Amino acid sequence: MTGTTSVAAAIDFYFDFSSPYGYFASTRIDAVAARHGRTARWRPYLMGIALRATGRRPLVEHPLMAEYARHDMERSARHLGVAFRFPEPFPVASVAACRAYYWLLDRDAGEAKHAAQALYRAYFVDGRDISRADTVIDTVAELGVARAELEAALADPAVKERLRRETDAAIAARVFGSPFFIVDGEPFWGNDRIEQLERWLGSGGW
Amino acid sequence: MTGTTSVAAAIDFYFDFSSPYGYFASTRIDAVAARHGRTARWRPYLMGIALRATGRRPLVEHPLMAEYARHDMERSARHLGVAFRFPEPFPVASVAACRAYYWLLDRDAGEAKHAAQALYRAYFVDGRDISRADTVIDTVAELGVARAELEAALADPAVKERLRRETDAAIAARVFGSPFFIVDGEPFWGNDRIEQLERWLGSGGW
Repeated sequence: MTGTTSVAAAIDFYFDFSSPYGYFASTRIDAVAARHGRTARWRPYLMGIALRATGRRPLVEHPLMAEYARHDMERSARHLGVAFRFPEPFPVASVAACRAYYWLLDRDAGEAKHAAQALYRAYFVDGRDISRADTVIDTVAELGVARAELEAALADPAVKERLRRETDAAIAARVFGSPFFIVDGEPFWGNDRIEQLERWLGSGGW
Repeated sequence: MTGTTSVAAAIDFYFDFSSPYGYFASTRIDAVAARHGRTARWRPYLMGIALRATGRRPLVEHPLMAEYARHDMERSARHLGVAFRFPEPFPVASVAACRAYYWLLDRDAGEAKHAAQALYRAYFVDGRDISRADTVIDTVAELGVARAELEAALADPAVKERLRRETDAAIAARVFGSPFFIVDGEPFWGNDRIEQLERWLGSGGW
């Protein structure tokens, strides 16, 4: 940074578009950041790649846990007052959604965030399969983005490479879940760590 | 129950003596229960057996997650104001601690709970290795329990069988973590679900 004023660092908000807890966090993090004079930098990535790095399998592949997890997602959504309908299929690949996000981000950060919110709603409220490129294009085009440009972007090697770099950067930052937050070097994993994240923002640690 | 008065069901509190989050929950659950006219039934079990049933490995065996988990345990302890020192070795087998608990429970439920609290403190505050029978005997004897009787109990086939039954019962109840709570048929997994558990107790669901 070359300016002369000190600016509080952004909260890095890592998430996967197929993650219900990432979706819940997406409805909360901007308000948390704003209360403490911060911004949230939304950084979708391919969590499946990071899970392989930890040797872990997705929650829903465990027999007992899958049943509990779905129950917990539905109850947590009601607890938080967030619209949610457990999607089918679940989980889904989020490559197309991530590519659309990063392509938009390089044009307009606000537009990219709106697209991310629309993609989360499409999947977790409207039950649309966002692993499909046509669903991603339909969803983002509804925000006024040109379909043909977006369609070309999803197949653009530079956009694909951008997502690879973002996922590599998340893994290099030791991110392995969704949502995952890093602020001033301090990591917080999970929608249920937002309470501690907010305390950290207010106190600078404890 | 054969009485004529209606008594609110206990909160089943399942935990493993080697689980930091189970320890944190143990410092909170009785007060939560009391605020809602309930009691907590402490039910230690061998979580490793249940983890095998889910195909899951302990948190600390995952390279990236192990480092984060330790950091989260220490930060969460400070957040909750609970004394905690990350123990070595970790995790440990909790067979002897569980056997001591269930043997005591059949004599005096209050004494059994005090022993459970003492065993958690021995491991997570004083760093004593509670996988060792002699540590369990020392810790519980400090509460006034006769050493020779306890030593005999730890080797008693009936006590061993009691623990097997308790662990089987936990798995049959679809318990797979620590802490894990069930109240009126509703399951809550994790120290960070106590907030929802408490809301559930107050409202009967939402």
